Amino acid sequence: MRITLVLCALALSFVVAAQTRESGPWWPNSEWGPTDQAGASNRITPEKIVAALTLAKTGRVYEIGQVYERGMPLGGTRDYALRLVPAIEPTGTNRVLYNDEFVAAEIGQVGTQFDGLGHIGGEVRYADGSLHRVFYNGYTTAEMNAGTGLRQLGVEHVKPLITRGVLVDLPAYKNVQRLAGGYEVTLADVRGALTRQGIAESSIQPGDAVLFRYGWAQLWSTPAEYGAPALPGIGMEVARWLVERKITVTGSDTSVTEVSPSPIQGAAIPVHQELMMKNGVFNIENMTFEELAADRGYEFLFVATPIRFEGATGSPLRPLAIR
Amino acid sequence: MRITLVLCALALSFVVAAQTRESGPWWPNSEWGPTDQAGASNRITPEKIVAALTLAKTGRVYEIGQVYERGMPLGGTRDYALRLVPAIEPTGTNRVLYNDEFVAAEIGQVGTQFDGLGHIGGEVRYADGSLHRVFYNGYTTAEMNAGTGLRQLGVEHVKPLITRGVLVDLPAYKNVQRLAGGYEVTLADVRGALTRQGIAESSIQPGDAVLFRYGWAQLWSTPAEYGAPALPGIGMEVARWLVERKITVTGSDTSVTEVSPSPIQGAAIPVHQELMMKNGVFNIENMTFEELAADRGYEFLFVATPIRFEGATGSPLRPLAIR
Amino acid sequence: MRITLVLCALALSFVVAAQTRESGPWWPNSEWGPTDQAGASNRITPEKIVAALTLAKTGRVYEIGQVYERGMPLGGTRDYALRLVPAIEPTGTNRVLYNDEFVAAEIGQVGTQFDGLGHIGGEVRYADGSLHRVFYNGYTTAEMNAGTGLRQLGVEHVKPLITRGVLVDLPAYKNVQRLAGGYEVTLADVRGALTRQGIAESSIQPGDAVLFRYGWAQLWSTPAEYGAPALPGIGMEVARWLVERKITVTGSDTSVTEVSPSPIQGAAIPVHQELMMKNGVFNIENMTFEELAADRGYEFLFVATPIRFEGATGSPLRPLAIR
Amino acid sequence: MRITLVLCALALSFVVAAQTRESGPWWPNSEWGPTDQAGASNRITPEKIVAALTLAKTGRVYEIGQVYERGMPLGGTRDYALRLVPAIEPTGTNRVLYNDEFVAAEIGQVGTQFDGLGHIGGEVRYADGSLHRVFYNGYTTAEMNAGTGLRQLGVEHVKPLITRGVLVDLPAYKNVQRLAGGYEVTLADVRGALTRQGIAESSIQPGDAVLFRYGWAQLWSTPAEYGAPALPGIGMEVARWLVERKITVTGSDTSVTEVSPSPIQGAAIPVHQELMMKNGVFNIENMTFEELAADRGYEFLFVATPIRFEGATGSPLRPLAIR
Repeated sequence: MRITLVLCALALSFVVAAQTRESGPWWPNSEWGPTDQAGASNRITPEKIVAALTLAKTGRVYEIGQVYERGMPLGGTRDYALRLVPAIEPTGTNRVLYNDEFVAAEIGQVGTQFDGLGHIGGEVRYADGSLHRVFYNGYTTAEMNAGTGLRQLGVEHVKPLITRGVLVDLPAYKNVQRLAGGYEVTLADVRGALTRQGIAESSIQPGDAVLFRYGWAQLWSTPAEYGAPALPGIGMEVARWLVERKITVTGSDTSVTEVSPSPIQGAAIPVHQELMMKNGVFNIENMTFEELAADRGYEFLFVATPIRFEGATGSPLRPLAIR
Repeated sequence: MRITLVLCALALSFVVAAQTRESGPWWPNSEWGPTDQAGASNRITPEKIVAALTLAKTGRVYEIGQVYERGMPLGGTRDYALRLVPAIEPTGTNRVLYNDEFVAAEIGQVGTQFDGLGHIGGEVRYADGSLHRVFYNGYTTAEMNAGTGLRQLGVEHVKPLITRGVLVDLPAYKNVQRLAGGYEVTLADVRGALTRQGIAESSIQPGDAVLFRYGWAQLWSTPAEYGAPALPGIGMEVARWLVERKITVTGSDTSVTEVSPSPIQGAAIPVHQELMMKNGVFNIENMTFEELAADRGYEFLFVATPIRFEGATGSPLRPLAIR
Repeated sequence: MRITLVLCALALSFVVAAQTRESGPWWPNSEWGPTDQAGASNRITPEKIVAALTLAKTGRVYEIGQVYERGMPLGGTRDYALRLVPAIEPTGTNRVLYNDEFVAAEIGQVGTQFDGLGHIGGEVRYADGSLHRVFYNGYTTAEMNAGTGLRQLGVEHVKPLITRGVLVDLPAYKNVQRLAGGYEVTLADVRGALTRQGIAESSIQPGDAVLFRYGWAQLWSTPAEYGAPALPGIGMEVARWLVERKITVTGSDTSVTEVSPSPIQGAAIPVHQELMMKNGVFNIENMTFEELAADRGYEFLFVATPIRFEGATGSPLRPLAIR
Repeated sequence: MRITLVLCALALSFVVAAQTRESGPWWPNSEWGPTDQAGASNRITPEKIVAALTLAKTGRVYEIGQVYERGMPLGGTRDYALRLVPAIEPTGTNRVLYNDEFVAAEIGQVGTQFDGLGHIGGEVRYADGSLHRVFYNGYTTAEMNAGTGLRQLGVEHVKPLITRGVLVDLPAYKNVQRLAGGYEVTLADVRGALTRQGIAESSIQPGDAVLFRYGWAQLWSTPAEYGAPALPGIGMEVARWLVERKITVTGSDTSVTEVSPSPIQGAAIPVHQELMMKNGVFNIENMTFEELAADRGYEFLFVATPIRFEGATGSPLRPLAIR
């Protein structure tokens, strides 16, 4: 039997904001207070910047991001369309012509992309049994979401990433051209690679950028291979180590950075949650380190400035390594 | 009487490319060869970068670009729309949620914008009397244009802008809150301002970024005032001086950098042509220097990395001054 | 004291679909079964169409929709951008040129717009006290929503609207140029207007299109006035009468059709819920009847064919009245 | 030796508009005057409409357009992206939820598409030897083009297409499942098919819609096959016959209607030029007639109402055949 009800007018007062963030499960971990929206970019202090700048000895610049182009690998159902809005007729006595372009895209989540803190969250159960949809520092979807962009945790809150960069070259350590799809990079791998590179683990300091080369950028021009379901990457073990080392940002040359599918049965990108949602640590995907690795560029000045699109979940990026 | 013709099948062989660029009126001026597409960004050599990095003494970072936001001033008929593509339902045993955003905009020509070399050109008459629509280094619209973006002079060719930055604070020199709309900044003004700031004119060296504060960023939140027809800015006199000083990039806190309307009767943005089309010198618009000027930050490490959207005329930007 | 919990992995099996729709509060009212997605467009039977066609006596066509143009009134935070993707160079021996256009917009919810059944829903409390976010026929947001469009109740399910149209000319009845902002059209008004027009109330039959002229299209070219907070329109009284008369579609010359703000304290567009969510009756906004009314065109062949964008909430439209 | 010139300020007065259209090669053919922008839609007179309506005997509606969906065949470099802009939180005491959608696409040139008169033109040589880029009725690109859409020949000028429709079923006549790629449909084929269908050639009258079934819609769900380089279609012979019969609109179940590649060596879509540019006859692509043909629906009421996007080259469409 069906039950017919009248529409209930629900005059609930929605009390959502600071209060729920106060009592959530992980955000007391935030070192930067209950309203922080900059996450681990706070670790890049003026002193950190000045120290990092000294790492550039010769001024040689490496482009460690990809060019955004039609036909590049795109994740999921994302699209990228750029159209020229060309000069029609010259104007003025100087007969000037000007072109523009129009872009329609998941602009913060295509190509080399910087994942902001509004990108990844989760549904969690609190001590009182209630379910909440939360992101970094306990911001809830009800607080954050609006049709025209995030009201909280937008990428505009992230500080420029000018810091010490360390490349962990896994294929060089494993003596392969590139890691196999589905391979989880272990902490032993990371330690082994660092040792091979002559970089002490203890040198990984708060605020650093720790980037992983899997060799996957070699497949960038063949999107079907590049975006295969089985991708190499770090797992929860390395993620927790990165958190302990208090880095600011990680990144890699695949579209997820973490191993895929997750070795944790049934889990979906758990490393993303560990890094971003719980600890405010950022992730840059679809980088390329082929040239840098060829030159054994393992430590460098890292420069990456996420574009401040208000309310965006991420940003296109032009990350650089300068030695 | 009307004349009726049949449609002529025009089996012309279009001979457009390098050849016409060889014989054009200004591109022999290019120091970087007839196929160069990087323009004055070539001046930022490794040595230039290393020297610039030393300008950052304390690591204090100034954001000298604006946040991209709904309602910001937009030039002409440009649009900017950002929509959240929100998490729908959690997935995986870890109940992950992820948001994306979709942007539709003249992405390289809204907000703080970097004008690339495919943005501004002109129709010019050659020695043989023929008319050509050309851009930097003689690239023609026929060579360049395609529906999905520029095939030549796309912004992806521009090198990262990490160099010495100099701010020319005009309102401080003129002792006004901001310059008046329509005021042309003279070379005497620039020299006077530099003198006041203790910066020798001779210190302006190849590869520098020379940025002009007009005080106009004070109007950013009132788009009608900010985008008024009469804007202060440099004219051809200062433009030619910038070219002589061989700078790489200029910029300002208005939407055009140059004085508007042009004091040259009937001309439309002639400074743009002088800088970009003829000399490959770049221009960044809609910056903000209020905080930097308050701290008397006149010389600094300038960092700006145009996003490499293939075939785009410009780029959004997050320019920084680091002292 | 803050409570720190570990992230709960919630292995809930989400059981959402047909089942919840079975036990909801209003969808047993649907005459067309529990999986229907066409709503009241089902009432437009072949017989209804054949009868409606006979209403066109002279073949005179009235455009009762607006042209979509830059600068037209837009609701809320919606945008509409159209860019020419022009012919670049002629191709082929016949030197063909072709232009395209690129549009970025809330395409189904700008200008003259057809509201589909996935556009308006509500959060309702069931008999068991649980809260559900539901649309027509009980489809839930969990069932419906996906980043790339609605999986249920997309506008592609709506049948073409070729039926008898009736115009209710309120300003003519009230002897005013246009209704005042905030005025609620009463059932007495509607009956009075119909009587004045010589149309018997009993002639309003299942499947009809009943359209309301408020005179508001006179303000179309002044968006600030057109989109004022106080708009004339029908309220719940007339909405219920429309439902009783079993019409298929209503519409008007304002952006909401219903009176705004709602006379029901605190309610937000309740007529939309009554019509679409509960009864599957459609609504077309931003129409224009000035010319039709001038010709006393009160009964006509109504033609409107929503574009079948899969998963869209609405559609642009070119509604016609043919007499 | 290179020649260095100064930039010539070209103070040419561009005299382009009515004048050049007066003296061009084909537009004196326009029956509707030198400023007409509606082309052959002018042939659909009120009398024509009234007569066409009588063709609907039973009211059975056939959808002869495709649904617009992610993954459908797209021509050239066109894109189609639809994103849900979903309800975030309920509002009002009635807890209303509303979804929108955002679309970014070559909206008039994807899926079932109506080609307007601003879509196809050509470069032609006049009697005086000069070259001109012109469209229907001699409108030039200089007159027409603007960044935000066509200033002339926009699709908003086209009248609603409510007229007699005739389907020419070629596979049925040729006794094949579908025509072979690259096959040119001859006039003899068309006459044979009409004879088989019991439709006299002389019955094709001014204002009619003459639609061609090639059977190609069977491949719609396999875009690679559907969009193969070799497509069946009409050629110049049939195109000229359609012009002689003074029809208003043709259409088919391929993406070009005309045979591809053109049998005329080196020519690019010459039938498009013949129909649209020279004669103002419209073309609808990517239709489907499988169901209509199965019912031997060869003559019918044709209903198609191009959406009036100001300055667009075409329109999405929901064409119907009603019998």
